[in-house]
Amino acid sequence: MAVRSISIGAKVPSVPLFEGSPGNSVNLAEELAQGKSVLIGVPGAFSPACSASHVPGFLKNLRAFNEKGYTGFYVVAVNDAFVTKAWGEQLLENKVAGDQIRFLADPKGEFTKELDLLFDAAKFFGNDRSKRYALLVEDGKVTNTFVEPDNTSVDVSDAEKVLKDA
Amino acid sequence: MAVRSISIGAKVPSVPLFEGSPGNSVNLAEELAQGKSVLIGVPGAFSPACSASHVPGFLKNLRAFNEKGYTGFYVVAVNDAFVTKAWGEQLLENKVAGDQIRFLADPKGEFTKELDLLFDAAKFFGNDRSKRYALLVEDGKVTNTFVEPDNTSVDVSDAEKVLKDA
Repeated sequence: MAVRSISIGAKVPSVPLFEGSPGNSVNLAEELAQGKSVLIGVPGAFSPACSASHVPGFLKNLRAFNEKGYTGFYVVAVNDAFVTKAWGEQLLENKVAGDQIRFLADPKGEFTKELDLLFDAAKFFGNDRSKRYALLVEDGKVTNTFVEPDNTSVDVSDAEKVLKDA
Repeated sequence: MAVRSISIGAKVPSVPLFEGSPGNSVNLAEELAQGKSVLIGVPGAFSPACSASHVPGFLKNLRAFNEKGYTGFYVVAVNDAFVTKAWGEQLLENKVAGDQIRFLADPKGEFTKELDLLFDAAKFFGNDRSKRYALLVEDGKVTNTFVEPDNTSVDVSDAEKVLKDA
C-alpha cells in the first residue's frame, strides 16, 4: 500500500524549481494549472534505479499516458540544475517524444519538502532527497499519489502501475 | 594571488571519499601517502566551467605533469558518487590516459570542510560546495596550493598555471 504524504486534492506547491541552469526557474503550480500531467520524483539523478528503471518506464509508456490525456511529464530531483540537465540529456538521447518530459532541479529540496516527500538520504547522497513517487495532476491539483513506502524502490510508482490508475 | 585555506605542509585529510557508488569508499590520505599527485577541487559536476575548462585543462596537460613526476589526478566534488561517476565517464570518453584521473564524491562535504575549502553555494547548487582549487601533494603532504579567491573562477587553479609551479 502506498504511503500518502501529499493528499489527493492538494495543490501543486508554488515553489520554484530550476531547469537547465540555476538561473532558469520554473513554477510548476503555474505550468500544471491546466491539463493532465504526471509528476515523477526520484532520489537521485544518475542513480541506478532512477536511470535504468523508473524514468525509462515512463518514457516507454508515454503514448499510453497520452491516450489517457496526460501530456506533461516532470521529473523532479533534489540535485542541482546542471546535474538534472545532464541526466535528462543522457536519458532522452535518441528517444522519440522526449520533448514531453522535462527534468527539474529542486536543489534545496524546498519543493519536495512542501510535498512532505523528503527523506534522510545522507548515508548515500549526503543530504535529504526526494522519495521515489509519481503524482497524477489535473488542473493543478493532485488526483492520485504513488509514493514508495521504503522511499527508494520502484514498485508502487512504477509507470505501468501508475498507468493502470490514470 | 591565491587564497591559502589549507597550508603548505598540511597532510591530506583522512576522511573517506566515494568512487563510483556510495558504498565504495576511498581514503586519499592513504592513496597519496607516496608519490606526487594533484588534487583538483570543483564546485559542481556537470557545471559549465568545471566541465568545459578546469578539468579538461588537466587532461590536456597530463603528459607534462607526468614528466614532472605527477602521476595521480583526483577530482573531488561535493556531489554524490553516482553523479561524479557519470560526470567522469562523460569527460573521459575517448580520452587517452584517462586511467590516471579519478573522480571522487564528497557527498556531505566533510573532506572539503577538513581542507577549509567549502563555500556557501546554496543559491546555485542548494548547499555548501567546494571552492575551485588545485593542490600539489607529495608523499601525503601538500606542497603547493592554488585556490580561487572568488571560489569559482578558473584562474589561479588553471592547469597551465599549476604546471608552472609544479
